Amino acid sequence: MATTAKRAQAREIEPGTYEAYMHDCPAVALLSTISNRWVSLTMCTLGSRGEAMRYSHISREIPGVSQKMLTQTLRMLERDGMVSRTVTPTVPVRVDYELTPLGQGLYALLSQVRDWAALKTDEVDEARAQYDARQTDR
Amino acid sequence: MATTAKRAQAREIEPGTYEAYMHDCPAVALLSTISNRWVSLTMCTLGSRGEAMRYSHISREIPGVSQKMLTQTLRMLERDGMVSRTVTPTVPVRVDYELTPLGQGLYALLSQVRDWAALKTDEVDEARAQYDARQTDR
Repeated sequence: MATTAKRAQAREIEPGTYEAYMHDCPAVALLSTISNRWVSLTMCTLGSRGEAMRYSHISREIPGVSQKMLTQTLRMLERDGMVSRTVTPTVPVRVDYELTPLGQGLYALLSQVRDWAALKTDEVDEARAQYDARQTDR
Repeated sequence: MATTAKRAQAREIEPGTYEAYMHDCPAVALLSTISNRWVSLTMCTLGSRGEAMRYSHISREIPGVSQKMLTQTLRMLERDGMVSRTVTPTVPVRVDYELTPLGQGLYALLSQVRDWAALKTDEVDEARAQYDARQTDR
């Protein structure tokens, strides 16, 4: 807490306020890390399949993901304890990825965001059309 | 549906499969748009405050957001129908932002992700420490 107060002070933010909390909270940092397109799509792909998947299979299911980005995302999710990686020493080597219990907990929430997106797509499209029409009118 | 089948065909993806769905689904595009650090932090700031906020106030509460990024994010959320923007013609002009009912629906889900992040921060930190120790052992 002393550190939090000191850090807040350095930014001239009043300690103990919501603002100070936002600026120093590790939860905000974690939320920022999770709030990422490739994290969402990777978690939803692994979660909706509900079983271990090979790299190539995950890669095929995620639209537009590059090999570099998928590798980075899977490594980050493994490091964060949300995905487990199993290497089977066949020829060629087989690598499988699966959600851990921690990852399943996050997937339960992200799948609700995905379902919301599916439900609200038309409403968002309509809002966009109206916004764009207003811009043209100006 | 014809378009979906055609698009899937162009990518040599079998039409009607989960894969084709993922590649053509506008919900996936919307999920990708929402799954963004600045979207999460902006929605959570507006949602947890629960009332209209001025631009400068939002900006102070979001750690590390640049003016350019916040402006882009608010414009995108306004276009998507999740945030309303009210201009009061005072001197200087006052601009307030507030979640719409559509935005409140998304905030209800994102706040659960935020709360999960707050609860699981220690578990994720522990996983990171273990992963890093394994890398050093190699």
